[in-house]
Amino acid sequence: MKAIELTDQDDPRSLALVETDTPQLQDGEVLVKVHAAGVNRGDLLQARGHYPPPPGASEIIGLECAGIIEDPGTTGREKGEEVACLLAGGGYGEYVAVPEGQLMPIPEGYSLTEAAAVVEVACTVWSNLGMLAGLREGQTVLIHGGAGGIGTFAIQLCKQLGATVAVTAGSAEKLETCRELGADILINYKEQDFSEELTGRCDIILDIMGAKYLKQNLRSLAEDGQLIIIGLQGGVKTEINLGALLPRRLTVRGTTLRARSLEGKAEVVRSTVENVWPLLADGRVRHHIHATFPLSEAAAAHELLDSGEVTGKLVLEA
Amino acid sequence: MKAIELTDQDDPRSLALVETDTPQLQDGEVLVKVHAAGVNRGDLLQARGHYPPPPGASEIIGLECAGIIEDPGTTGREKGEEVACLLAGGGYGEYVAVPEGQLMPIPEGYSLTEAAAVVEVACTVWSNLGMLAGLREGQTVLIHGGAGGIGTFAIQLCKQLGATVAVTAGSAEKLETCRELGADILINYKEQDFSEELTGRCDIILDIMGAKYLKQNLRSLAEDGQLIIIGLQGGVKTEINLGALLPRRLTVRGTTLRARSLEGKAEVVRSTVENVWPLLADGRVRHHIHATFPLSEAAAAHELLDSGEVTGKLVLEA
Repeated sequence: MKAIELTDQDDPRSLALVETDTPQLQDGEVLVKVHAAGVNRGDLLQARGHYPPPPGASEIIGLECAGIIEDPGTTGREKGEEVACLLAGGGYGEYVAVPEGQLMPIPEGYSLTEAAAVVEVACTVWSNLGMLAGLREGQTVLIHGGAGGIGTFAIQLCKQLGATVAVTAGSAEKLETCRELGADILINYKEQDFSEELTGRCDIILDIMGAKYLKQNLRSLAEDGQLIIIGLQGGVKTEINLGALLPRRLTVRGTTLRARSLEGKAEVVRSTVENVWPLLADGRVRHHIHATFPLSEAAAAHELLDSGEVTGKLVLEA
Repeated sequence: MKAIELTDQDDPRSLALVETDTPQLQDGEVLVKVHAAGVNRGDLLQARGHYPPPPGASEIIGLECAGIIEDPGTTGREKGEEVACLLAGGGYGEYVAVPEGQLMPIPEGYSLTEAAAVVEVACTVWSNLGMLAGLREGQTVLIHGGAGGIGTFAIQLCKQLGATVAVTAGSAEKLETCRELGADILINYKEQDFSEELTGRCDIILDIMGAKYLKQNLRSLAEDGQLIIIGLQGGVKTEINLGALLPRRLTVRGTTLRARSLEGKAEVVRSTVENVWPLLADGRVRHHIHATFPLSEAAAAHELLDSGEVTGKLVLEA
């Protein structure tokens, strides 16, 4: 089969379509013919050698896709069934082997390309804000990078759950997009320290910056507030003042979906389909595709995502 | 009435019994004649000026007591009723005003002195390990300072909940006490780096050291592990590597009981009486009193607790 690989291991821009082996099915996996694969920041890290796949996972890049079951293996699935897939790797190939627990139905009314654009963001946002943080009506949520793939989805989902939504973004245009999606408090991080505006006000913060924002994030949390770190774009090491945690009973968590066990991923997938898919079906939460590229142009898609000029998601199509 | 106060604000050893005003009742409070008051590390900090009472609370030291209702105020309680009390302050006095939600029955078979020795440790351990961390059978819990007031109680409670219990302490004698209380893994922190023994094994850590242990605590956590910091005896500021949190989905929390709202304290008290009092009544969990002192000798009690030579609790008696 064909798949995207680095032709030069030291050059993350050397992604190209090459001939490689079709995946062998393990027990409980189905073989999916990929129609579309979402592009994630983790994919950029993997191309740079910083985010190796977990043991046993495909070496091929790609954390989500949608396509058609080509071989149901030992599962009771049907050949020809359309599915969306949460992947530990392998989305950037012609075929991918997927554990049955990571298969999702295509949201009602969605094309395969649209489905590939929502798998990772839906599972990430729901598993963190819904399952882990227990977001409730009336709470205030801060979403960093509000105009990105995660952000555009999280704003809508939080509004549907009855939260007040604050966002940061780096331009007036991006903030306008956030506003249109429902965000209530808009902060341009290039012009303003978000923690001055939000001191003690946030029940939950969904963070992608890590070290760079830690102090400001803690300052922004309300009593019993939770900081959930899902990305480390602003570095990993910094000073923490633990004395800030105790009086307000603050929580700092770090999570990543990819490292979860098969059982853990299956649980996230089940809960996401149950709680989020109905919101997609009737349009209360919408996908937000910035652009699509042919799979062969994965390098260009990575370059665009890396530029910071993307609003929403990029999707590769077979 | 008489109460313990600093006769020299700059000298934490100047605690002495002086004449002061009897507390005025607010709506929903009862006046309790104190029979016995537990000594806590927070009391030592307050005597040093480092742990001021929350707004509206008594300026008098003392976070727990047991005694007899002298004036039920606007509540429906009976004068003469024996009660144990979780306090935001005021335990080191002849009388203390207590919000009704912070009154607990005397555990079956307990004297007032024994009751005063379990209020804070029971509420602290249960609110953190039971209510917050959701400790489950089969999990592994690390308790730092296993021979202290919190530690001696936490070991027994965790064993009753079906956990494997690891402890740290600073002497063979203290570790032997921990073993007798049920601890499974004994670590002398003066001789051994606990994180080498426990790398990746702990589901929950109850920490009193803060900055000094942060790195080792994170190293000791298993997947989905939770570090709960309730004391900062090893300092407040240190470096954190947030990259350690994400792959194992680690949680770092800080909590303190004293800063909770009235509603929050009442909820903790209710849940503690419901879940822990039955274990005290039938002796499955026992109080552990190291020594009692007359209230007038509070300074000597503080000095002893500060020495690190205490196993279990110190109690002051009227």
